Amino acid sequence: MKFTVAQLNYHIGNFSGNKELICKAIQKAKSAGSDLIIFSELCIPGYPPLDLLDRLDFIEKCDQTVQEIAKECTGIAAIVGSPTRNKMTEGKKLFNSALLLSEGEVLYSANKALLPTYDIFDEYRYFEPQKQFSVFLFKGLRLAITICEDLWDEQPFDNEFEKSRLYTVSPMEKLARQNPDIIINIAASPFSYTKIETRENIFISKAVKYKIPVISVNQTGANTELIFDGASIIINEKGKIFNQLPFFEEAVETYSFENIKSGTIFLEEQKIDSISLIHKALVTGLRDYFVKSGLRNSIIGLSGGIDSALCLCLAAEALGHENVRALLMPSRYSSDHSVSDAVALAKTLKVQYDIINIEKPFSAFEEDLAPVFNGMKPDVTEENIQARVRAILLMAVSNKYGCIVLNTSNKSEAAVGYGTLYGDMAGGLSLIGDVYKTDVYRLAGFINRNSKIIPEHIIKKLPSAELRPDQFDTDSLPDYNILDSILYQYIELQKPASRIIKEGADKDTVLKVIRMIDFNEYKRYQAPPVLRISSKAFGAGRRMPLVARH
Amino acid sequence: MKFTVAQLNYHIGNFSGNKELICKAIQKAKSAGSDLIIFSELCIPGYPPLDLLDRLDFIEKCDQTVQEIAKECTGIAAIVGSPTRNKMTEGKKLFNSALLLSEGEVLYSANKALLPTYDIFDEYRYFEPQKQFSVFLFKGLRLAITICEDLWDEQPFDNEFEKSRLYTVSPMEKLARQNPDIIINIAASPFSYTKIETRENIFISKAVKYKIPVISVNQTGANTELIFDGASIIINEKGKIFNQLPFFEEAVETYSFENIKSGTIFLEEQKIDSISLIHKALVTGLRDYFVKSGLRNSIIGLSGGIDSALCLCLAAEALGHENVRALLMPSRYSSDHSVSDAVALAKTLKVQYDIINIEKPFSAFEEDLAPVFNGMKPDVTEENIQARVRAILLMAVSNKYGCIVLNTSNKSEAAVGYGTLYGDMAGGLSLIGDVYKTDVYRLAGFINRNSKIIPEHIIKKLPSAELRPDQFDTDSLPDYNILDSILYQYIELQKPASRIIKEGADKDTVLKVIRMIDFNEYKRYQAPPVLRISSKAFGAGRRMPLVARH
Repeated sequence: MKFTVAQLNYHIGNFSGNKELICKAIQKAKSAGSDLIIFSELCIPGYPPLDLLDRLDFIEKCDQTVQEIAKECTGIAAIVGSPTRNKMTEGKKLFNSALLLSEGEVLYSANKALLPTYDIFDEYRYFEPQKQFSVFLFKGLRLAITICEDLWDEQPFDNEFEKSRLYTVSPMEKLARQNPDIIINIAASPFSYTKIETRENIFISKAVKYKIPVISVNQTGANTELIFDGASIIINEKGKIFNQLPFFEEAVETYSFENIKSGTIFLEEQKIDSISLIHKALVTGLRDYFVKSGLRNSIIGLSGGIDSALCLCLAAEALGHENVRALLMPSRYSSDHSVSDAVALAKTLKVQYDIINIEKPFSAFEEDLAPVFNGMKPDVTEENIQARVRAILLMAVSNKYGCIVLNTSNKSEAAVGYGTLYGDMAGGLSLIGDVYKTDVYRLAGFINRNSKIIPEHIIKKLPSAELRPDQFDTDSLPDYNILDSILYQYIELQKPASRIIKEGADKDTVLKVIRMIDFNEYKRYQAPPVLRISSKAFGAGRRMPLVARH
Repeated sequence: MKFTVAQLNYHIGNFSGNKELICKAIQKAKSAGSDLIIFSELCIPGYPPLDLLDRLDFIEKCDQTVQEIAKECTGIAAIVGSPTRNKMTEGKKLFNSALLLSEGEVLYSANKALLPTYDIFDEYRYFEPQKQFSVFLFKGLRLAITICEDLWDEQPFDNEFEKSRLYTVSPMEKLARQNPDIIINIAASPFSYTKIETRENIFISKAVKYKIPVISVNQTGANTELIFDGASIIINEKGKIFNQLPFFEEAVETYSFENIKSGTIFLEEQKIDSISLIHKALVTGLRDYFVKSGLRNSIIGLSGGIDSALCLCLAAEALGHENVRALLMPSRYSSDHSVSDAVALAKTLKVQYDIINIEKPFSAFEEDLAPVFNGMKPDVTEENIQARVRAILLMAVSNKYGCIVLNTSNKSEAAVGYGTLYGDMAGGLSLIGDVYKTDVYRLAGFINRNSKIIPEHIIKKLPSAELRPDQFDTDSLPDYNILDSILYQYIELQKPASRIIKEGADKDTVLKVIRMIDFNEYKRYQAPPVLRISSKAFGAGRRMPLVARH
């Protein structure tokens, strides 16, 4: 008995593309003599389809694609993920299903029981949870087929409340009563740099508990914010990792059951380097956003600071330097080195650049507004005008040449609202909006690991928005080490201010930072989608009321 | 036995404010000799608290506020809505509860069983559903206490799939076995102009089915996008409306059980006028956004078109003319009447206005971009620059004077992407982003019902963005009557293109419009929050993947 693990990169709503990928892998598996090829969760429509699931024609296309793929399954079976209709007259209209296809037919269907409905997940919005469980006998093996979260029944509810289990049902506990020989898990598990080991340990714990092997098939590639890291994993019946597929790459691998079950462990212990994985995640996320949107060209406002420098490197790597352009937009407040540093980087990366000084439109605005402003002193208004003039220029080149503006704001800035709406917060996609400033430096170090791509001066100088003379970030913000630590505790770990202070942070700083985070929800509401690399990114996974008192 | 219905306007996270409102109503009810005062769903934290529910300190404040209110309940009992802890070791940490408070204690707690998780609702994200049900004996009456959706068990799943029930449980069916004397329903039911009768009929059907009266207590006022219309309703045991509280206003009314049960029906049949209710909803939504954010001043870009004219009227009514300013920003393409019409309206409304011609900054951009554009022909780029120059001016005055920019885009434009991101799509709040253009005209007619506030010429002229010479909306869009009909069917009713065409719409027009809707998801992703008046508004209630093939 041979299993094939197919870790592929699906595209939401691209039924013909997904089908082609799947059929190619089926052919490859057949050549390898495989009995069963396993694809990942909701591979037919792509994940997450969100409210497209409310459309009847979308579901009909899922059904039709499943039927077409079933016909390809001659001499081999396949497990695919797709929404299917709930035939009961009560409950949500759909299930999130794993379908076992063979010789033109759907032989068996398992429905997801544990529907994640937290952070970026909204599965209970669409799906009815399964309540009955049965193993499926396939070529003499009893398969326990589960879908992603179905194996996460023991996860604690991840917040400041006392620890407890999020779910009241354990699908594997019920399936175990039917003596399965192997656990198959099809997943759509997005990358988060803090959750890699947690995920591995869940599969290991199930193998150990039930004394059977586990095959978990994840997908790779990105759909807008969500980046799937692949890393599909095969665990033997003793809970040792038998093999793991690569991070962020497609792969189709075939294994025999006997080898998986108790065979020699041939995977060496890997040291997980989170910065290199975050780098891969961002490049994958950016590339797929363009490929899947049918886009090619991008443009970045290059300030001479570290954030836009890092983004330019990521874009050149993900899209090819010939598909990236840079726009340098110095002002009366820009330091000389800002332009020379930016030019140096653009030249190193072979990225086309233009320089437009923003003085003319900026002073046109100043003049036009003078009668309305009636002698009032310059303040943040004039700083914002500069940032917005730059956004107009970027968007104009974007419109004229058909490029997408890449947003270069980092998570620390976005958190405290240190940015201008419709100014530097503009863009089609935020590359590093889930990367804290301290990690921006780490990523810059990673980019420079072999040769000095980002000029040393960009890395070493004090962060500044250069919107007024001698302005530095630290004028209005705490040191980034301190800031990021508070942000992480408040945003990712959801600790109350009182606990962050109790654990050693300066009270006034904590209260000031939290006030800034809470106050700036309205800005983030209008921010572009953010490539998600953490367990709590700004965007769809974090839903805050705007009109609220904190 | 006397009941008091308290229809109040709560503010998310404003525990002291909500408590004050509640305690005042308790005093009023005591004076009226009431035995039980009923408040609405989640009145303690305000609705919807969203991810604030993940914060331990937020829940602690709920607990504490409930305790404080319980102490006010001397000689009277109160039913309040609050999140409470799930004490089981498995499942979500919270329930959405109705708590009966009396003499300093929580005497009884009912938890919500049916947790709406569709459109703008995410309740399963936070709450464990209740599975046991019991009536509560209070002063000789058996109360069936339910929470909002708990009575909506029979609602069909609202889409193109075959009809069926969304829920597998009927809380009232279970409570009915314990012979209740009255159904109490505490609600947070947002306004939608298509659902007023549906909602009434649900309560009527329950009264008829179980032959007991129903008291449903809704809230009023708005929290960002969501506008609660009040209209709390009391139905007698024959299913006749005994009384209904006003739409969009606070009210505290006391009734005796005997009168409610079978007393004379003294409410006259009301003709529901949806345009007048939409008008009230928008004024309420706008006013509460400002009041609850602690804001006072607003600014609107006044173009001389009907959308901004309507918005200026709404703003003057909601905020007071002295708190609204208008900015007129004509360009080389503006017609003379655009300015004169806008000025006339501003004068009628006594709204302060300034005029800034955008020529200077616009031509500064043209000059600066010329070398980069290298002789390429004018196109949508230059149109967008004009819209964005206006946004900069609006935001600049907003920054300098501390006003909020009110967005004036309508739903028809937003749907087809007929607007400029960071240009006319900018603003802190979208007033009419859920109002189709054809309803914009109806609302303008309503505003002018007694006297001609909006100049006739603004209403009569052909819609134009005036971004190039002789440009009219109909150059690139179908007639708004046709467009809005297609939009309504695709967005609100979620009909597939094939069915819209089958039912009579022109095929090419339908396909073109739907392509525009799908293509422009990326623009709407960054739009401001939209006051919601329909059953499907853009924003949190409509979640579409950006990188998707349609």
